[in-house]
Amino acid sequence: MDASAFETAVQELHADRVRGASELARRCLDLLALSAQSAPAGGCAELLQLLAQRCARLVAARPSMAPIENLLDAWSNGLGHLDSSSLTVLRSTAAELAREGIWQSKRALLRSAENAAAQIGDDKTLITHSLSSTLLAVFERLQARNIRVIVTESRPLNEGHILARRLSDWNIPTQLITDAQLGLFTAQADLALLGADSLLPDGSLVNKAGSLLLALAANHSGVPLYVCCESFKQRRTGQTQMPLEEMAAGELGAPSLPGVRARNIYFDITPASLISRWIDEHGVHADGKLSITTGK
Amino acid sequence: MDASAFETAVQELHADRVRGASELARRCLDLLALSAQSAPAGGCAELLQLLAQRCARLVAARPSMAPIENLLDAWSNGLGHLDSSSLTVLRSTAAELAREGIWQSKRALLRSAENAAAQIGDDKTLITHSLSSTLLAVFERLQARNIRVIVTESRPLNEGHILARRLSDWNIPTQLITDAQLGLFTAQADLALLGADSLLPDGSLVNKAGSLLLALAANHSGVPLYVCCESFKQRRTGQTQMPLEEMAAGELGAPSLPGVRARNIYFDITPASLISRWIDEHGVHADGKLSITTGK
Repeated sequence: MDASAFETAVQELHADRVRGASELARRCLDLLALSAQSAPAGGCAELLQLLAQRCARLVAARPSMAPIENLLDAWSNGLGHLDSSSLTVLRSTAAELAREGIWQSKRALLRSAENAAAQIGDDKTLITHSLSSTLLAVFERLQARNIRVIVTESRPLNEGHILARRLSDWNIPTQLITDAQLGLFTAQADLALLGADSLLPDGSLVNKAGSLLLALAANHSGVPLYVCCESFKQRRTGQTQMPLEEMAAGELGAPSLPGVRARNIYFDITPASLISRWIDEHGVHADGKLSITTGK
Repeated sequence: MDASAFETAVQELHADRVRGASELARRCLDLLALSAQSAPAGGCAELLQLLAQRCARLVAARPSMAPIENLLDAWSNGLGHLDSSSLTVLRSTAAELAREGIWQSKRALLRSAENAAAQIGDDKTLITHSLSSTLLAVFERLQARNIRVIVTESRPLNEGHILARRLSDWNIPTQLITDAQLGLFTAQADLALLGADSLLPDGSLVNKAGSLLLALAANHSGVPLYVCCESFKQRRTGQTQMPLEEMAAGELGAPSLPGVRARNIYFDITPASLISRWIDEHGVHADGKLSITTGK
């Protein structure tokens, strides 16, 4: 993977509005595996330097997404322990390490989904916002458990339509609503369920704009809110700055008017106090503590 | 106005998704003035019966909208006091009574807007949701008072675009956001401002779906919420049933999928506890009491 192909891939990563944070993190590891295998380098030191640069470039492309930073940091640290006496060996072991990271991420996603499904149980009406690969796995796991789902369209790009299509494929009865109807419909649900782009050190949730509204509506209606995501979505202590990415205003499809600025901030922050439980591959957490261990 | 022309007008009223409750109430009075003048009737008793039927038909066309019921009830009661010895005189006095109702409604709107503008003051950032003729008058009144406005698009029909256009015409700096960004942007405002479709006897607000989300976000961020509307938007004691109108699912533009039902409920209910003040033509009310009298 030469510099030009890598740069194209970074631009695609930056512009991707459909895939969630874990999926994009795995895509980054994939790009690093390809880079390890075939980026032009005259020796081990040069390759390691170039891989470190590409790592930093990928992290900077999506600063709101903790999984990218966490999985790439882990990979980057692992590189230091590899045998760097042979370029051929270094290329193949570095690529293998990236593939191992992808595998771990997928395993954590499935275990998180299993833990969430076990915790949710049968015969429930769930309400959710936006699209998350982890929640897709939860719904897939719950498909024969007599659940019903209320899905927001999730403006501006309506990724809720993609979720509705998957739920339809799985024969899960679904209601599709505008984001503005969240207040009305949350009161009809047994449980609100969100994925995460990141969890901050204080337990608050960074997720698609509108997640805070679902959390407030759930709190108002006495409906519990569960957040389900893999543990590598947690920002470690110290990673406190949280730039909320703003995307192209054109996505709103609003008329262009003098003095009117269309805004398109993609994420909002839901405080930990509004989250009843969060669930990862290790189990179910409440009040900041792991309260139920269900991971296998 | 014969039966067929009236029926067409009722269908238009039922389908109208752009005009607010007061504007539609005035449109109803206009239809009744035209009916009084020219509906086919052989005598006074027949005309009064027909006007009562048309009144009931108009009220039933938009059951969520208290102003239609209140203004039409007042007109209907007034009919009983008119001279019904001559069909010609009855036609013209009944039409005149309807026009007087329209005039009172407009006067109440302007006074409510004046009271709100006086209460809001200069140099504020306001956030609002949906479109209201009363709030348009408030913003018009505030246009030279150094205000800035954050406007939601207001799905599904994006009437926020109409509001943004008017604010642009008045040189009021405006940010246009998706409904989903309400949680983020409310924290940046000095004040949240809503119009009303109706106020219920317990002081809760019936307004465009999403209003409850703005109220919850305002409460969460410590931003006061003012509701500005004319007093005839209050449902009287006894009018407790509040059907929330559901409109065509097609307005969402969602894909048609087996097992997926698109929902399009137009209104939600915001409890009185989330409303800091409400303002009408008589003055400013807080805690259910008229606290400041500013009407002239």
